[in-house]
Amino acid sequence: MVGGGKESFIGPFHRMAAHMTGRVELVCGAFGNTRHRSFEGGEDLFLGRDRVYGAYRDMLRKEASLPADSRPDFVAITAPNNLHYPVAMAALDAGFHVLCEKPLTTNMDEVLNLQRKVEDKKLLVGLAHSYTGYPMVREAQKLIREGRVGTIRRVVIECPQGWLATRLETAGNRQASWRADPRRCGPSGCMADVGSHGAYLAELFTGQAITEVSADIRGCVAGRQVDDDGAVLFRLANGAQGVLWASQVAVGETGGTRIRIFGDKGGLLWELENPNTLTIHSVTGSSEVRHSGFPLSPQTATPPAGRTESLCHALAYVYTQFAESILAEAEKRDHPPAYPSLADGIRGVAFVDAVLRNSRQENTEKWTKLTIA
Amino acid sequence: MVGGGKESFIGPFHRMAAHMTGRVELVCGAFGNTRHRSFEGGEDLFLGRDRVYGAYRDMLRKEASLPADSRPDFVAITAPNNLHYPVAMAALDAGFHVLCEKPLTTNMDEVLNLQRKVEDKKLLVGLAHSYTGYPMVREAQKLIREGRVGTIRRVVIECPQGWLATRLETAGNRQASWRADPRRCGPSGCMADVGSHGAYLAELFTGQAITEVSADIRGCVAGRQVDDDGAVLFRLANGAQGVLWASQVAVGETGGTRIRIFGDKGGLLWELENPNTLTIHSVTGSSEVRHSGFPLSPQTATPPAGRTESLCHALAYVYTQFAESILAEAEKRDHPPAYPSLADGIRGVAFVDAVLRNSRQENTEKWTKLTIA
Amino acid sequence: MVGGGKESFIGPFHRMAAHMTGRVELVCGAFGNTRHRSFEGGEDLFLGRDRVYGAYRDMLRKEASLPADSRPDFVAITAPNNLHYPVAMAALDAGFHVLCEKPLTTNMDEVLNLQRKVEDKKLLVGLAHSYTGYPMVREAQKLIREGRVGTIRRVVIECPQGWLATRLETAGNRQASWRADPRRCGPSGCMADVGSHGAYLAELFTGQAITEVSADIRGCVAGRQVDDDGAVLFRLANGAQGVLWASQVAVGETGGTRIRIFGDKGGLLWELENPNTLTIHSVTGSSEVRHSGFPLSPQTATPPAGRTESLCHALAYVYTQFAESILAEAEKRDHPPAYPSLADGIRGVAFVDAVLRNSRQENTEKWTKLTIA
Amino acid sequence: MVGGGKESFIGPFHRMAAHMTGRVELVCGAFGNTRHRSFEGGEDLFLGRDRVYGAYRDMLRKEASLPADSRPDFVAITAPNNLHYPVAMAALDAGFHVLCEKPLTTNMDEVLNLQRKVEDKKLLVGLAHSYTGYPMVREAQKLIREGRVGTIRRVVIECPQGWLATRLETAGNRQASWRADPRRCGPSGCMADVGSHGAYLAELFTGQAITEVSADIRGCVAGRQVDDDGAVLFRLANGAQGVLWASQVAVGETGGTRIRIFGDKGGLLWELENPNTLTIHSVTGSSEVRHSGFPLSPQTATPPAGRTESLCHALAYVYTQFAESILAEAEKRDHPPAYPSLADGIRGVAFVDAVLRNSRQENTEKWTKLTIA
Repeated sequence: MVGGGKESFIGPFHRMAAHMTGRVELVCGAFGNTRHRSFEGGEDLFLGRDRVYGAYRDMLRKEASLPADSRPDFVAITAPNNLHYPVAMAALDAGFHVLCEKPLTTNMDEVLNLQRKVEDKKLLVGLAHSYTGYPMVREAQKLIREGRVGTIRRVVIECPQGWLATRLETAGNRQASWRADPRRCGPSGCMADVGSHGAYLAELFTGQAITEVSADIRGCVAGRQVDDDGAVLFRLANGAQGVLWASQVAVGETGGTRIRIFGDKGGLLWELENPNTLTIHSVTGSSEVRHSGFPLSPQTATPPAGRTESLCHALAYVYTQFAESILAEAEKRDHPPAYPSLADGIRGVAFVDAVLRNSRQENTEKWTKLTIA
Repeated sequence: MVGGGKESFIGPFHRMAAHMTGRVELVCGAFGNTRHRSFEGGEDLFLGRDRVYGAYRDMLRKEASLPADSRPDFVAITAPNNLHYPVAMAALDAGFHVLCEKPLTTNMDEVLNLQRKVEDKKLLVGLAHSYTGYPMVREAQKLIREGRVGTIRRVVIECPQGWLATRLETAGNRQASWRADPRRCGPSGCMADVGSHGAYLAELFTGQAITEVSADIRGCVAGRQVDDDGAVLFRLANGAQGVLWASQVAVGETGGTRIRIFGDKGGLLWELENPNTLTIHSVTGSSEVRHSGFPLSPQTATPPAGRTESLCHALAYVYTQFAESILAEAEKRDHPPAYPSLADGIRGVAFVDAVLRNSRQENTEKWTKLTIA
Repeated sequence: MVGGGKESFIGPFHRMAAHMTGRVELVCGAFGNTRHRSFEGGEDLFLGRDRVYGAYRDMLRKEASLPADSRPDFVAITAPNNLHYPVAMAALDAGFHVLCEKPLTTNMDEVLNLQRKVEDKKLLVGLAHSYTGYPMVREAQKLIREGRVGTIRRVVIECPQGWLATRLETAGNRQASWRADPRRCGPSGCMADVGSHGAYLAELFTGQAITEVSADIRGCVAGRQVDDDGAVLFRLANGAQGVLWASQVAVGETGGTRIRIFGDKGGLLWELENPNTLTIHSVTGSSEVRHSGFPLSPQTATPPAGRTESLCHALAYVYTQFAESILAEAEKRDHPPAYPSLADGIRGVAFVDAVLRNSRQENTEKWTKLTIA
Repeated sequence: MVGGGKESFIGPFHRMAAHMTGRVELVCGAFGNTRHRSFEGGEDLFLGRDRVYGAYRDMLRKEASLPADSRPDFVAITAPNNLHYPVAMAALDAGFHVLCEKPLTTNMDEVLNLQRKVEDKKLLVGLAHSYTGYPMVREAQKLIREGRVGTIRRVVIECPQGWLATRLETAGNRQASWRADPRRCGPSGCMADVGSHGAYLAELFTGQAITEVSADIRGCVAGRQVDDDGAVLFRLANGAQGVLWASQVAVGETGGTRIRIFGDKGGLLWELENPNTLTIHSVTGSSEVRHSGFPLSPQTATPPAGRTESLCHALAYVYTQFAESILAEAEKRDHPPAYPSLADGIRGVAFVDAVLRNSRQENTEKWTKLTIA
């Protein structure tokens, strides 16, 4: 693992998720950018001191040289956004598969380089987008594929957070400080951190790629150097229209991602704050509510009824699928990848890139196309 | 009353609301465009046959000539959109005040002519936008005025309906047939019928005018001649950004208008499906929920606790305020109008006009300004 | 109308409901117990002074002597509980049908006398229990009759209010003063005023009579002379078990009556605060949500989608059904009564009576049977 | 660990919770009642084969003889109810602290014997009641202690599940088979398994002991040998009244435990299906909503905002507190226990015992006291 040290938000979730799979074991890590910070982060993780590193490059070199049975299979990247690209490139060069936090990189050049590297190395790259891990998200995908909503007409997504409504980045908040610093989070703040979840969900649910965007984003908080709120009109490959609102300044909102899909036969609603529930409307007037606690189609796992699914469970699904694919690869078995893929990662970066281009003050064009070679 | 006959949706609500005021009495009507249809509509209304008319022009002429004590004070217009303008003009010419359903007219030329006529005649024009009648909407307005949310940054509105998800207009549905017929509803379907509520609410809550829009609207249902779904990015006079989604094809949605306002001090949520409740978030982390059943500030009426406010009650508020202003006018008293005004009506028409211009296929400009002389 | 004067809570709802029917007209009233109070109450009602009375006995005598075409068909009783019995008896004696607020009387002796009088006079008595007027309540009844939940096992009802959490009755609150005064509300406060709604709903939904109760009720507020909170275990004729909680001291609760029914095939949920929605669970694991805005079975009216049903609409249904039965009676047509009946009223009084007997301190028996001759 | 094998429901949650603490490590286990089943269960747990046992007695004997640094500190009991008592007694005899699933035992004799043993051995016994682990449950406790609701008048609890609405115990469902078998679950089914959570919550929130009960419980499903649904009236030491409904046959309900507390100053609501939220009503009319994602009082942990707390997190809190107390004990530090205690376990068994006695058919007494020596 690279990143995920003492004050990391997402690191502990990754470790817990890995543990939950029953088949992934954390064996080494560079949890911070100095030896001291890394050891501090590695504490309580029951790792030997010889497997904790102050620099990820040291870790990659040393671990790559270990014998097959103690050598890790893949590297999980949970460091700030600006490190995703160099760490992923180095890990691939060292011969490791990579499971990376989103966004995959902070700009198009990087992500296309990464794509070439992956093609060259023939290694696996997965994106740790946890949403695909929620049983009812997969249930929704399946229902849409089966035609329950018919031809999709309209997608409505919101990803509201409120924790950055004040200038926390200068108030000693570690999470805020890197998430609002363009050198570490990249040229976009909210749209890359939060909005990218929405774009991913839109494509995941509909099975359609986002083709163009029209956006209005800005940094609302005085002194902030990146966007912290914005709305995006978008269009899908099949002509459907979408609207996405993402925010870090929506006071009182606590991350309640919500997605609705409407087609000519029906509609669907899924909400992160009620993740075990999926509501399905039919154009004939009836509505159905499904809970993942009940026996569903076989591929949806069954968390205990009445207990809400947590981020850990969702992320564990991604880890399980990624581990499954690594095993299949090793055993030359055919195994369609069920984790968020490199292609998803590229489209995610392209989405943020198009939103940024469309929102630039001097720009007057209404629609900006996503440019993926 | 003009319109509101046998199959009218809104007519009965207007009559019930008028009755609820305890001070407005329906005395005459042209409830349909033939004598037969009008009488049919007037049945059960306890009106004498001599006060029911087949043509509104006959009604206006005849009623204008009655002695003061039986002559109506104002004309309520509940006919399809295309009639709002000619009926309102004729009513003003005949010397009556006018309370008109929204949208005030179907285009800018008409609404500006109407404005000139009103200035000329010195009569009152009110818009029957029921939202202002909900106690918690007014509570929200008041809290925003008092600074509870601070400087407004972001407005998020949705007005989703699903009843026109199929081509009802050719299936004998009276409501659908005029609401999807550009000769009767005007050049816009959903945006004028539904989205205009959202635009009105945005301005009502914030006290700011919408200055420009960027929109993506279309008719989703094959063969439909007007828009039935659309999303709009907008900006308010103070620089705040807004996003509005309105739809008639959102299968399963039943008209649950929802508005959220975010500022640098707090956030507010109000929903039509839970109209007696207002949620207020503070940037300090606490949330408050107010119910209109509890004693509130004096100007918010108190419907019975636990019983939800209905459209009737809301519309009755508008009727009461309009009647109050007419009385005040007659008695030369000063009375600030508390009903949706002519200016609101003009801005509503300008909003739809700008959305239509921005959405035209050949248009490539990102932002279109509302043009109000 | 008897009662329903200046500070009446329920009176205006009755008048509005009557007006909504389009077929019931208020023609006379004794709105208070003095000529002055009654006139005060009658103001704004557009009634001639000759049809407003200071004493209900005067009204009954005078109105009974009017010619058929101006004589009222029935008397609506909206006065405090202690008056229900004497007014109903007098009205029946004067030859009028009676539509009475619940509870029908304050004790068993009265209600059985009333029953005998009705049998003697062959007149109609209806109970203004508004719940039966909600479309989704009737939809629930129908689904249960059709077997959707199978054999009923368990009924769970709550009727929580919080407005009497302090001693409002001595603080000048008119509603509190009679509702907490045993001379006017009868021997029970909360159970008769609020709990009786729950008992009625239990029987309405299940089609089963309540046979016995075990109860724990008390007046929580110091100095209060009647019960203001209580829970009741009950059993239905088919052996199903029920539990009912009713309160006037549940701080923060605003009257959100809620009923759930569970059988061996399914479960049902209906809530007053979301009255247009009915949730239906099946033992096979699926859940369905019905909204009264969609086309349902023909006998369920369709209020405008997205707008919540109000008490007025529900009460109007009762008025319509009662008027329909009076007409049918007059025209010798067969018309099964669809309003809450005399028998419902008797069982309601018997329920409160059994709860009171079971709860008496000296009583140690666990179960007390409802005694209806 | 004793129990928690292949098809265990709760076992994996305990292991995950222990792992989450960062300070508790699973070192040995008897995961089933045969060597084969136990190894099967121990698979994937990364335990050496020498630390997995076919019989818990073997495990206790062998592990007790290990040197201090590899010897476990305590035994976690996650086996069916009937084993709680013998395993706990044997573990205490072997010198281990015990963390046991609820109910602590299946009858009063056992629990009182256990109490004597604990006093004798001076070891710690904790009850794995996860509810105390939810931050907003502890926030509620704290607010009540501070007087936010004033003198408590009324407690309302529901614990509805629906998964046993059919006779699953004869359909090969492992969970159902032991939970509906009186030899393994004890004399009570639903009340011991589900209702006991409610009784614990009532005492946890209010800080008051339940003193007497009046109950109506039964097995609804034909052929079932234990109760699967029931309602209980209860009284707290301070005179407050309570009502509790617990069910396993409430079709469509998925375990949504819900508790409301009402006092003379305010009211509180907490729901398991929305566990990060606490609603607080004041008698003055305002309502406040707290989310555990926001900074709260220091002792409430802060799960990521917008992500719902899971059972794992809650249980991890119990494990952490128990481990903390063991450490404090070892280090002779003073440490008030913050986990559900032996006394809680005894009162839980006494509650179920009183409910069973009160509900016996031949019993006619209304109230039955909890008998704790």
